[in-house]
Amino acid sequence: MLLQTSASVVIALLMSLVGIAFVLWQTRRVLAEDPGNELMRKIALAIQEGASAFLQREYRIIGIFVAIVATIIAMYLQVQTAVCFVVGACASAGAGYLGMYVAVRANVRTAAAASRGLHQGLRVAFGSGAIMGMSVVSFSLIGMTVLFLIFNGDPNQLTYITGFGFGASSIALFARVGGGIYTKAADVGADLVGKVEKGIPEDDPRNPAVIADNVGDNVGDVAGMGADLFESYSGSIIAAATLGAALGNDSVAFVGLPFLVAAVGVVASLFGIYMVIGEEQEVTQAETFNSNGLLIRAHHFLSKYVAKIDEKASLEDLLLALRRSVWGASVLILGLSLFAVLLSGVHFNYWLVILVGLIAGNAIAYATEYFTSYTEKPTQAIGKATETGAATTIIQGLAVGMMSTVFPVLITAFAILFSIWLGFKADGTIAAGLYAVALAGVGMLSTLGVTLATDAYGPVADNAGGIAEMSGLPHEVRNRTDALDSLGNTTAATGKGFAIGSAVLTALALLAAYVTAAKITSLDMLGPTMLPGILIGAMMPYLFSALTMMAVGKAAHEIVLEVRRQFNVIPGLMEGTAEPDYKTCVGISTESALREMILPGSLAVVVPIVVGHVLGKEALAGLLVGTMSSGFLLAVMMANAGGAWDNAKKWIETGEYGGKGSDAHKAAVVGDTVGDPFKDTSGPSLNILIKLMTIVSLVFATSFGSGWLSF
Amino acid sequence: MLLQTSASVVIALLMSLVGIAFVLWQTRRVLAEDPGNELMRKIALAIQEGASAFLQREYRIIGIFVAIVATIIAMYLQVQTAVCFVVGACASAGAGYLGMYVAVRANVRTAAAASRGLHQGLRVAFGSGAIMGMSVVSFSLIGMTVLFLIFNGDPNQLTYITGFGFGASSIALFARVGGGIYTKAADVGADLVGKVEKGIPEDDPRNPAVIADNVGDNVGDVAGMGADLFESYSGSIIAAATLGAALGNDSVAFVGLPFLVAAVGVVASLFGIYMVIGEEQEVTQAETFNSNGLLIRAHHFLSKYVAKIDEKASLEDLLLALRRSVWGASVLILGLSLFAVLLSGVHFNYWLVILVGLIAGNAIAYATEYFTSYTEKPTQAIGKATETGAATTIIQGLAVGMMSTVFPVLITAFAILFSIWLGFKADGTIAAGLYAVALAGVGMLSTLGVTLATDAYGPVADNAGGIAEMSGLPHEVRNRTDALDSLGNTTAATGKGFAIGSAVLTALALLAAYVTAAKITSLDMLGPTMLPGILIGAMMPYLFSALTMMAVGKAAHEIVLEVRRQFNVIPGLMEGTAEPDYKTCVGISTESALREMILPGSLAVVVPIVVGHVLGKEALAGLLVGTMSSGFLLAVMMANAGGAWDNAKKWIETGEYGGKGSDAHKAAVVGDTVGDPFKDTSGPSLNILIKLMTIVSLVFATSFGSGWLSF
Repeated sequence: MLLQTSASVVIALLMSLVGIAFVLWQTRRVLAEDPGNELMRKIALAIQEGASAFLQREYRIIGIFVAIVATIIAMYLQVQTAVCFVVGACASAGAGYLGMYVAVRANVRTAAAASRGLHQGLRVAFGSGAIMGMSVVSFSLIGMTVLFLIFNGDPNQLTYITGFGFGASSIALFARVGGGIYTKAADVGADLVGKVEKGIPEDDPRNPAVIADNVGDNVGDVAGMGADLFESYSGSIIAAATLGAALGNDSVAFVGLPFLVAAVGVVASLFGIYMVIGEEQEVTQAETFNSNGLLIRAHHFLSKYVAKIDEKASLEDLLLALRRSVWGASVLILGLSLFAVLLSGVHFNYWLVILVGLIAGNAIAYATEYFTSYTEKPTQAIGKATETGAATTIIQGLAVGMMSTVFPVLITAFAILFSIWLGFKADGTIAAGLYAVALAGVGMLSTLGVTLATDAYGPVADNAGGIAEMSGLPHEVRNRTDALDSLGNTTAATGKGFAIGSAVLTALALLAAYVTAAKITSLDMLGPTMLPGILIGAMMPYLFSALTMMAVGKAAHEIVLEVRRQFNVIPGLMEGTAEPDYKTCVGISTESALREMILPGSLAVVVPIVVGHVLGKEALAGLLVGTMSSGFLLAVMMANAGGAWDNAKKWIETGEYGGKGSDAHKAAVVGDTVGDPFKDTSGPSLNILIKLMTIVSLVFATSFGSGWLSF
Repeated sequence: MLLQTSASVVIALLMSLVGIAFVLWQTRRVLAEDPGNELMRKIALAIQEGASAFLQREYRIIGIFVAIVATIIAMYLQVQTAVCFVVGACASAGAGYLGMYVAVRANVRTAAAASRGLHQGLRVAFGSGAIMGMSVVSFSLIGMTVLFLIFNGDPNQLTYITGFGFGASSIALFARVGGGIYTKAADVGADLVGKVEKGIPEDDPRNPAVIADNVGDNVGDVAGMGADLFESYSGSIIAAATLGAALGNDSVAFVGLPFLVAAVGVVASLFGIYMVIGEEQEVTQAETFNSNGLLIRAHHFLSKYVAKIDEKASLEDLLLALRRSVWGASVLILGLSLFAVLLSGVHFNYWLVILVGLIAGNAIAYATEYFTSYTEKPTQAIGKATETGAATTIIQGLAVGMMSTVFPVLITAFAILFSIWLGFKADGTIAAGLYAVALAGVGMLSTLGVTLATDAYGPVADNAGGIAEMSGLPHEVRNRTDALDSLGNTTAATGKGFAIGSAVLTALALLAAYVTAAKITSLDMLGPTMLPGILIGAMMPYLFSALTMMAVGKAAHEIVLEVRRQFNVIPGLMEGTAEPDYKTCVGISTESALREMILPGSLAVVVPIVVGHVLGKEALAGLLVGTMSSGFLLAVMMANAGGAWDNAKKWIETGEYGGKGSDAHKAAVVGDTVGDPFKDTSGPSLNILIKLMTIVSLVFATSFGSGWLSF
């Protein structure tokens, strides 16, 4: 090998510092934007306060949770693992906090920028998303690399760093599940009274739950999604490094490679982000601080790739601009990671593995888009089904959601198969093949900085629309924010496909790491406890989804009662002469979301530990496989059915089947409402379930025996 | 061992002859009942003709399919297997034909008997169900035992008899999938135009699709359910015998035991059936042909156990009568099978295994009832959710369906675990444990004669209600048939739980037989092709359900167009002065159901063969495990959500939340309509998918190698 592990890790550390520098610079840039007029600022402030109140309370609960779990880990396992656990939790929470902090300030600035033009609005909103994306990548990378260097770069001490992944998973659990319940409780609650009972439009400032609804977009889709992918990103690198360390001779190169690929991904993601938010006038700015002209020429060269978006840009144009940024980053990663593979001295096949991961990620995103976009047949079939009422709309939507699982599963299955095959051909062992699967996961997630930017941009645009509506900005501004919002809905759907696909690869890699760590020699599927384990595992996603869906129902019901109460007791509220009490609704959403996440959250942590002890470590592996396979399917089905219902409604709103207010539209609204907890609460929460159960097993791997029922 | 295999098989053969004698006697008895007045007979004739037309066309398609597959088996495997395949298909088709033949004649006789009293109606309907139940058991048993004896009782030739199971599975595929599509297409189509557009009640003779709807109840719930359980019953016995044959020393006893347990089940089922349809006046009849008084005394003794049902019997009373019959049969089996175990000379633990199977079957049925009965909280929660509209009704129903998977999965997982443990403790090998799992499946299904009777009775009662309505029988008759129909709905839900639970145990046993037959030595879950296999397997139930749900949608749409057309072109139809053209609707349902079942049906046969060849025999085992676990969950979720929605609607119709016609009721109707394809098409079809894929793999086991991608 040409490059030592430590050198690779140091390169990754340096790149994470570059990422953090970008985050800080970009944060200043977004905050320097015009925050709009007084009314806009006032609305934005309410959202900021609501988001901050939620995060503070959430982080207090998480703090208690982290303290308890860290103590248990320190007592039963190692202190080092406990420290890594705390660091992982803090890094993820920090990235989430920063992303939210900017998002709830970028929303109003996006609305103000949209007054000037479509591209200006896109730049601010996407710039905010880029902060989330790059924070996740950089915070994860700096945390892991520093810990790794503290442990002297000793691959044998990698086991401590699994604690980092567990910490990240814990934050993801609370952020995704709690955030998911919050956002849909507020959304459904606001709609049920506002739109249905009172007949006032969405985002109407008279609705007491409107601020909670806007806060929800941020806590669910910015902080929740960020924490979810922070977990996948960290988990895939940890799994690859752990599996690499067990590969014998070349282990030093194998451990370093995932860090190198991640480092390469930081550079590529920055380039991808630049392709959207780069501005031509900056070329002259660059001249001022660079005398030799190299940077100027580089900037001139790069600026050719910046997306050109004019006022007449269609949804397709906007989508293409974002897609180009992800593709551009992917191509750059392919080129740079070839160097990484060559410098590491590992077999060329591992470069093909990274290619497999990148292609798989993009292919899943594309398949997701096909099934959820209203320009395509599946969603149009749901639109057609609205003609015969709500029941056929639901049946068709569920059928589309189920059908949409086929490609993501086939893509993932073949990505796993080819990765194992490539690894096996390179180094002759199945262990090398499993390392390759983990590396494919790292490859898939290497573009995360920019893919997450395209995703976390959505809620900012959504909020901007709400603020434009509430503050009565001119019609053309609302049109622009609507265009940006539609774009956000599409990227949200593809982002969910990417999140679940990467969750499966990460979980699989972590499972392989668990099997290694638990010293399991044979995982015979017909072993005595294996099939019970698989069945119970397959049941977990159903139980988890049932709990989260019921939680949304309960929490939404509380919001409905409060909104009704306010309309009854506050005179002049309906007439717009009095102001609603937004804070109470924010408080109720916060309380109920945090309360309702406890049970499903605890199950995800407790069940693997109980099964590992009672049925033994082999059954636990079976449990994880069951949860992974069944959860993958259910998550894709729920996310895509939800996305397709949402877009079928939007399609009808463009005038199909009678347009807004028709019977078809009413049926479509039923579909959309059913889809809300599907796509924003239960579906995405399953990503966490899959990964968290696996990483809990990995962390506690050494404590499991052959179970109480000895055969 | 005290009893040779051949002796056990001969006993089973004799008992199957007793069962067939009962079937013939009981058929004559039912057909001798009063067939009602002329109008009733006319309506019943239309249903008979429709059912017969469907079956004839279905059997023609099946005939072609069976001929092709038999040829392939004869060419690539053995001629003996092909013969067994044809025999299995004919036995299942024969049982289905007989069951349907009686059911479509018992419906009108039930309506006529209900004019005389509630118990009279129950007796005729249940008597018809008993014919279906006992035909399934007897035809399966006679087929297998005769084939086994032809092969000289040589356990090594048991592999041919797997063909019998494949033949049964093929019929089940067409009967369940085709029948399921038929019944819901007709039901939804009739309702969408009749109830929704024209505002005429259910079962109104003016509706051109009303006959098709009534035919559908029979082809779906009598022939479909019967073929489904015929497959489970045959499969579990074949799997147990095959696994027993591989157990070495005691193999002769192990092979014979499942046949003995089945034989014991025939006797016990007959007793259970007697507990419902026995009549006191027969005691005197018995005296005439028995001089020594033994039979008289026996009859006097037994008649104490016959259910007493008076006119004021509540749903609980009726339910108890049916439950007592299943419990009575179960207790009898426990006693008799203890003799069977002792006579076979196998370890006492195997008797406990049979106990585990019986308890598991009853426990799953009980759990199903809890989640789908409107006297319990889960269904009432759906009722409450109707207050806030269709969307919350759907969300709550799906959540209940998901939650309802917990107990069936835990019960099945522990039944598997304890069976393996008991077998392992008895004979010291995991192979003995897997044999025990198969035996538990045989134990669970040993009561099939009577459990299927409680199930196949439902559509007869449902039809009777339709005939009473259409022929204008007095109000009290309709009340009685309604009571019998409600009872049928509850037993249908528990029957579905039983069907899926037994399908999983059977499939698991067949999987173990496959692994043995394919000479797979290690089924390492982290093997190169295993996880891709599991993921693709887990996807199959989703693809299958999507196809069947869309099929119902398409077929229902064709019915809707035809019913609308008839109302437009036939003058006087709405006024009741002209008659609709029932036959065209029957023809459309038949055509579309048979057309739409081809694709999902082919997938179930083709995918295992393709995966077995391309990815190899280990990946195929992974595929089967994936399909089994994911399909189990999805099937239970769909069946129970559908049942709960149905009953939530019925609960509201008793006057809750505003009763019939209220907004809550409208929301409940949406839930019920979504639930229709869930519980009657897609959900039950998954049982077939799980078993068929496994038995196809077993039959072709020897033809699979290590796959094209060699590692």
